[in-house]
Amino acid sequence: MRDIARETGLSVTAVSLVLGNKPNKISEASKKRILETAERLNFHPNLLAVGLVKKHTNTLGLILPDIGNAFYSQLALGVDAEAYANGRSILLVNSNMDAKRDLESLDMLAARGVDAIILCVSNGIEPGHAKTIEEKIKALPIPVVLADRHEPSLYCSSVSVNNAKGGELATEHLLSLGHRRILFVTGQMAHSNNQERLKGCVSALERHGLGLCADDVVEAESNYDSGGKAAGRLARGVYTAAFLFNDMMAYGFCGELYKLGVRIPEDISVVGFDNIFFSELMQAPLTTVAQPVCEIGRAAAGVALEEMDSLTKTKRIISFEPELIVRKSTGPRNTDTHK
Amino acid sequence: MRDIARETGLSVTAVSLVLGNKPNKISEASKKRILETAERLNFHPNLLAVGLVKKHTNTLGLILPDIGNAFYSQLALGVDAEAYANGRSILLVNSNMDAKRDLESLDMLAARGVDAIILCVSNGIEPGHAKTIEEKIKALPIPVVLADRHEPSLYCSSVSVNNAKGGELATEHLLSLGHRRILFVTGQMAHSNNQERLKGCVSALERHGLGLCADDVVEAESNYDSGGKAAGRLARGVYTAAFLFNDMMAYGFCGELYKLGVRIPEDISVVGFDNIFFSELMQAPLTTVAQPVCEIGRAAAGVALEEMDSLTKTKRIISFEPELIVRKSTGPRNTDTHK
Repeated sequence: MRDIARETGLSVTAVSLVLGNKPNKISEASKKRILETAERLNFHPNLLAVGLVKKHTNTLGLILPDIGNAFYSQLALGVDAEAYANGRSILLVNSNMDAKRDLESLDMLAARGVDAIILCVSNGIEPGHAKTIEEKIKALPIPVVLADRHEPSLYCSSVSVNNAKGGELATEHLLSLGHRRILFVTGQMAHSNNQERLKGCVSALERHGLGLCADDVVEAESNYDSGGKAAGRLARGVYTAAFLFNDMMAYGFCGELYKLGVRIPEDISVVGFDNIFFSELMQAPLTTVAQPVCEIGRAAAGVALEEMDSLTKTKRIISFEPELIVRKSTGPRNTDTHK
Repeated sequence: MRDIARETGLSVTAVSLVLGNKPNKISEASKKRILETAERLNFHPNLLAVGLVKKHTNTLGLILPDIGNAFYSQLALGVDAEAYANGRSILLVNSNMDAKRDLESLDMLAARGVDAIILCVSNGIEPGHAKTIEEKIKALPIPVVLADRHEPSLYCSSVSVNNAKGGELATEHLLSLGHRRILFVTGQMAHSNNQERLKGCVSALERHGLGLCADDVVEAESNYDSGGKAAGRLARGVYTAAFLFNDMMAYGFCGELYKLGVRIPEDISVVGFDNIFFSELMQAPLTTVAQPVCEIGRAAAGVALEEMDSLTKTKRIISFEPELIVRKSTGPRNTDTHK
């Protein structure tokens, strides 16, 4: 409030009356100035500020990009388990893969008085988004922890998997089975996880004297439907394998292949990423790169709890190792049907 | 606050100072009395009460029993879509199938100033729980809408599917295929949805001159793992079919059958309930009773928005019809292997 008073040249009392929505005789012009400055300075009339509750509200906010993706609901269970074991509750928000909603959700949760926020950034951090999200995180009076990604440009702790390693494991597996033309179906490339995974693919290809052909990369939307659409690329008949950057896309992709009568793995080998529980139940149980998703959620909650207890913002980077789980959706390149 | 003053015999000013956590000279004994009375009268120091924001916070609370069940995450997407289209945000809480957490979550969301709450009650309403949840809902200053169940004892609107009809469709389907010994794997029987589904099963059995044998009913926990455990019952070798009261249990059940080398549907026909999208991707694509889950979520949000706009609590009952989706997990009773 002192900052707002300084910026507007008005008294702290005036600022307090206006922001507290208390009866006052302050002019409309001054009110407007105070409210605009509060907005600009990222002032949150949170529960702490009004002293309604004890310093901690014992609530953690969690922002997920897509609650329909079982990966994120598993991550949420991990966060919830760790928080609840420590006497904290979780308030969850779905941003629906919309960068604007990341920002709105950070504000909304802060206004509701949560003690810390765990953020799974939706999509990529686009240039404009990066700037605003960086400013937003800096201005919030509570710690923010990134889960499921590391973002060097943001000053906050992060918990994620070694994505480059995961991309490398999947590609290396397909190459070792004799596949040479692999379709890579990535999520949005503005997202650093996908950039990292693709780097891993390139490393593996290069080790085998191969390069990545831009034509072999399809940028999809990380969900079931867009995975299904990517199956259309197979019509060209040059691919013997596909690596999809998450399991949900792989499910959509396989669902479409079943409809087209394409056999897995005889015609096409398929690899996913995440190892959601459903992968083992598929018609061709899915070979995939496993992430310890529940542990990622737990670790993110652990860091958030530490930071909220110590009232400090830090930049700790926790990285888990991925693991390739080989099932029946991948097999040797079939030289009868493909040349 | 007036009610609390009356109950405690203290002044409204004293109550206001204590609950507002403002400096005061009130004795510890009086403070304790005020806080206990506030608790008993269900006083929520919410954003509205302190006049920090405009009357509506434009936020809807949603309480789910199990965010790891894709049925509930799809329901959440429906709620979210409807709310967001109307300029509202969703705050989601996972109660982890714990009746105590239903109550805590109602309080927590009310304290965070949501305008209305959509509640998917966890497990059953046990006798004690029913009383407290009834009182809690009555005392809350905001509307509560039940989604995914109808509960005659609670005065609030509800949106659900015709569960008895669903149970009947599934059982009738299995009977029409010649099955006579069916294993029924229910969720917790304290939950009225499961009672209704089982009633539907009994109706279908009776129409075929059959009765329900208590031995053929297994009460499980509505999740993947407990579905898997129920597969142990098949060891007795008398069943040719199983009806599981949700798809997540059916997935666990089928996963276990694959491990045991039991063929679906040659050895055992399997039916689920919900029609989560995974069901069509399974090794034996799952025959299941479809619920229009997204519409249930949308409708619940619609009712909640209406009630919060009109500031009234009503008891509207919306019931959707279920639909049987026949896939490959069910087939005629195999008279070679079973007598």
